[in-house]
This record gives sequence, C-alpha cells and structure tokens, in this order.
Amino acid sequence: MNIHDIDTVAIHPDGESMVIIDQTLLPGEVKLLSLSGREEIWEAIRSLRVRGAPAIGAAAAIGAYLAVRRVYSDDFNEMHAAFIKEKGYLASARPTAVNLFWASERMYKRFLSCRDMARGELIAAMRSEAQAIMDEDAEACRMMGEHGLTLARPGWGILTHCNAGKLATIRYGTATAPIYLGQQRGYNFRVYADETRPLLQGARLTAFELQAAGVDVTLQCDNMAASTMKRGLVQAVFTGADRVAANGDTANKIGTLAAAIAAKRYGIPFYVFAPVSTIDLNTSSGEHIDIEQRDPSEVTDLWYKKPMAPDGIKVLNPAFDVTDAELITAIVTERGIARPPYGESLKALIG
Amino acid sequence: MNIHDIDTVAIHPDGESMVIIDQTLLPGEVKLLSLSGREEIWEAIRSLRVRGAPAIGAAAAIGAYLAVRRVYSDDFNEMHAAFIKEKGYLASARPTAVNLFWASERMYKRFLSCRDMARGELIAAMRSEAQAIMDEDAEACRMMGEHGLTLARPGWGILTHCNAGKLATIRYGTATAPIYLGQQRGYNFRVYADETRPLLQGARLTAFELQAAGVDVTLQCDNMAASTMKRGLVQAVFTGADRVAANGDTANKIGTLAAAIAAKRYGIPFYVFAPVSTIDLNTSSGEHIDIEQRDPSEVTDLWYKKPMAPDGIKVLNPAFDVTDAELITAIVTERGIARPPYGESLKALIG
Repeated sequence: MNIHDIDTVAIHPDGESMVIIDQTLLPGEVKLLSLSGREEIWEAIRSLRVRGAPAIGAAAAIGAYLAVRRVYSDDFNEMHAAFIKEKGYLASARPTAVNLFWASERMYKRFLSCRDMARGELIAAMRSEAQAIMDEDAEACRMMGEHGLTLARPGWGILTHCNAGKLATIRYGTATAPIYLGQQRGYNFRVYADETRPLLQGARLTAFELQAAGVDVTLQCDNMAASTMKRGLVQAVFTGADRVAANGDTANKIGTLAAAIAAKRYGIPFYVFAPVSTIDLNTSSGEHIDIEQRDPSEVTDLWYKKPMAPDGIKVLNPAFDVTDAELITAIVTERGIARPPYGESLKALIG
Repeated sequence: MNIHDIDTVAIHPDGESMVIIDQTLLPGEVKLLSLSGREEIWEAIRSLRVRGAPAIGAAAAIGAYLAVRRVYSDDFNEMHAAFIKEKGYLASARPTAVNLFWASERMYKRFLSCRDMARGELIAAMRSEAQAIMDEDAEACRMMGEHGLTLARPGWGILTHCNAGKLATIRYGTATAPIYLGQQRGYNFRVYADETRPLLQGARLTAFELQAAGVDVTLQCDNMAASTMKRGLVQAVFTGADRVAANGDTANKIGTLAAAIAAKRYGIPFYVFAPVSTIDLNTSSGEHIDIEQRDPSEVTDLWYKKPMAPDGIKVLNPAFDVTDAELITAIVTERGIARPPYGESLKALIG
C-alpha cells in the first residue's frame, strides 16, 4: 500500500468511521486504522497516530460528525449535548493544537445552522462540512505547491526540516507540495531531509513519504545541513510554519532557525510554506510567541536501546524556534507569495 | 569511582598492563579495564573503548611498550621484529587515526636509540617514553586550559560540541580544559553540550564528564544551539579540532560549522582548542582536507530500539566539517593563542 494513494485522514465510504494512516508504525509499516468509537479517536490524536495541524483538524471534524451520528434521536438538544461533550473531550487529547479547536468550532457553527433539519439531513450536512474541511486543506496545499514551484528550477537540491508533508495534512503537504508537483512534472529535485531531533519526524516521516513517491531523497542529521549547503548541494530551503507573526517572524520546529542562518550565509533562498490559517496578524513579532518546552526524556532516552545521557542531566527541549523575518526570502501561502516587507505583504494577502 | 580521579589511559603500576576507562559503557557505568594481551588492546582501540586522538596515541604507545616487554629475550633483533609486528597490528585497529601512527613512530625512534641497552634498561626506557607521551599530553591540555581561561569571564555560558574532553585525552581535555580550571577557580560557567549526532559523544561523554566534575551542564540537541544563542545564554563557543590548516580553516566533528555560523550571527566568540600537533602547515586550506564519510546505519539505526528511517534510504554521514577561518575568533594551543590572520599567527606559534 502506497501512502500517496490514500488520504492521511478520511471518512470511511460507509460513513460509519474515520480512516487514518497509523503514523506511530511508520516507517516500518503502513497500516490503516478504522476508528469509530470516541475513545479510540481520542487515543489516536493523543498518541500521535494522527499528527500535523491540518490532519488533527480533520480528525476533530470527523470526530464531531461521528459524535452527532451516534445519537439515535431526532431531538436537537440531545444532539447538541453530545456535540458539546465531544468537543471538550477531543480538545483534551492535544490541548495546544490550534487546528483542533478551529475545526471543532467550524463544525459547531455548521451544526447550529442545522437546527431545523431532520436528523438524516443534519448528519449529511455534518459529514459534508467535515469533508469540505479536508477538501479545502488539500486544495490549499495544492495551491501552495503551484506557487512554490514557480520559485524552483529543475534539478535543484531542496533542503527541508521536520515534516511539513502529506502526513501532516490530507494530501501534498505544505513544504512538500511543490516537491510532489515537481516530481509529476519532471523537475527531478534532489531533496535533503533533516532527521529533526529529538522526535525524528524528518527521518521517520518526511524521508518515508518522499521515498514512497519516488522522490530522490537523502537523509541527514540536522547538524550536517550547513555542510551540505556549503558543498553547493542545496539551491533552496523549504520549511513549514506553526505560526507566522504579522512581521513575518516564523515559529516552526526547533532547528529551523539554524537552517535559515546557514542558508543566509550561503546565499540560499529560504522559503516558508504557511497556509493563511497559520498567519497570526494579532501577534506583532516572534518575541511574543511562547515556545513549548517538552519532556527531557525525548532527548535523553525516548528512542534509545539504553539511556544515552547521564542520569539527572539538565536538558533543553524547546519544541520550536523563531526564524527572524529577515532570514526568510518569501512566505508561500495558498493565496500567493508574500515577500518582504512582510508587515505589508501578509496583510495584503489576508486582507 | 569518579573519572576525574583517574587518567583516561594509564600504565598499571605493576608495569604489566594498560588501564583504560571503558568508554563504550558510559554514561551508564564507569569500569576500568586492564589490558595486557595484544588482541585485547587492538579490540579496545577498534571498538572505541578508548577513543579521542591523544588517548588513542597513548594506548598505541603503551601497546608498543608492552609488545617489547613480552619478548623474553635479550636479542635486539627479536625485539625489533616484535615491535614492527605490533606497530602494524595496532595501526590496523583505526587506520585513519593520525595520533596512533605518530605515537608509534615516536616509540619506534626511542626504541632504535636503545639498541645497545640491556633488556631491562630498554624496557624501562620504553615505559618512560610512553609515560612521557601521556604526561606531555596532560600538560598541553592544562596549558590550553590556562590560555583559554584568559578568554572567559566568570558566569559565562559556554557552548561546546562533541567531546573534546578529558575522555579524549589523558586529563583535562582540550576545549574542556578551561572549563575544569574555571570550575576549580569559582568561575561558575554554565555549559551547553550539543548531543552531537549521530554518535552522541556530547550526550554520552561530554555531559557525563562535566557532570562528574560538578560543572553546571545542560544537554541540548544540536539543532537547538542557534536558539540557545539567540536567547543570550551563550557567551562563547569552545570546540576541539581534528586538523587545522595553515590558513586557520579547521576540520572538526560534523556540526561544528553550523555552530560557528550561528555564533557569528549572534556576535558570540568562537574558540578552537587545538594542540600544535593538530596544526598542519602543509595543508594550505580546508578545501584540501578529505572528509571521512561514515556508515549510514549510524544515522538510521545504530542506537535505536527499531529502525528510525525507511529501508534503503540514502544517507549523508560525513564525520567532520570544515569551519572557515573567518568564523573562528581565535585558536588556542598549549603554546599560546593564535589570532587572525592565522597564516602568520599559526606559523609564528609553531615556529
């Protein structure tokens, strides 16, 4: 089974469950999970069987649809109570995942607009709203791919960090979208995937999904990126974004800043791929973005056969860093490409 | 047992064996190994029970002494044959380790100068030459510490990469020497140790040996270093060197270049600690330094519970990178501190 033949998150054709690729088994095994019970959906989000902001949003949307569907009553109030309960329950699975809340709220608005429908009609509306969220995400990624591809030339070496790929979205990914489009169109990119310590999303997910699509991909440790750039192997850096501030400062997976600093030294353009939903005009600059500090054990012994650091050692484990706007050549969204000064260009795009 | 109470490599007081700290068991267990047979010495070098250029050199020197001692004959030619055989045998354990050859050659010169001695006298001379190699190394490290300490201020945050520590030398280390001296003199440094993928020398060895000395040390993934610098936590970077070219370009563990580029961005001085034996005036610049490419499995699955990258993925695994001279604030040797332009200052130091 090739992961590119299936969506990362989907509604089962019978409408009775959600189908996901279990990402905890990658890269060793591609296994689809069919989830219908609320506990199993919660667990799948919690334990990162489904991860990546758009994919989590989709899972929450389908979860909301299934929750309403589970109520065997025509009473709107009963369905409403079930919806509210489900919303809070799923939110508790990943309390910092903004897309989870966003998708739940969008489903809730649609739900409220269905007050006067019969049960069957209401359930169909919920299903179609969840599907719309997924279709819009896939389309946004495809458009980022089209815009991004205009920035690249055939044969380029492209460095990417973490997983801003198909596995974080429904299809195409964000930073990977131009790579997949280029692959279809004979661009023959050579991709360098940073392994992305400590959680190794680059090794486990990005290298895997690019390889599955037949892309020429090479894995490297994060600390090798500067050397690969210096050797002239990299013509552009493509990364995702967790949050873009109004001035263009961009929070993304830890290590993105280091890649941007090295890219600047070697005159390599650094492109951030960010759906407009990640652009936050209410945050003036990167200084105001809080950085999540994660568990030290991710660094010291999460993946290891034996502990790889001394007992009781102090550990830094920030999940993200902020890349200064001046290091970013352009920000690619589904609506077009923003260039510096970002204070103006981002506002114009979102406007 | 605290590793700072013992030398990394030593001659057993009874003169019959070599005593090393088995580094393959760190950081979990501190265990001394007493090695007398030639196969066990070879295996200890081969499998990195003893590693780090000066420490390997010391092991080769003691190995040569023990080889001569094993010959129960007054016949110089018989001892000579045993020495030659041992030299080739030990060299095959780590064929790229320059210090191994250097130490063997120095021992061989001493050996040849002992042609007219009685067996007991000759063996004593070999032992004393091996001890001199170790004593000189410890003294060179101590002097690098003294010089390096003049560059730092109490309370500084110091970032280090890989292990240029006590465990790579006999005592003190190179880049760690000023940290240990500062510790004795109340400098209260805060040290940030890069874990140093793929082989994790920073996590397994540097964090361990600094912690054992009571130094305030914090472990981080390599890709976090830029972020730590940006936060203002780092006032200087101290690293070792595998080879310094005549113009100051410095080959060191992969990832050193990335740290130097980030340090430059944040105006943080970047100091290389290099005994004069690593300065190679015959290599004009970093371009002429060959970079060893190591086994992909070190990146994909060496330490892991399960493979962490897809089967058959292409991998970059350079052991070293070259940090351009312009990124290096100063090069600290046992004879003093070289500043740019290095073409002149290094030549003056080596004389």
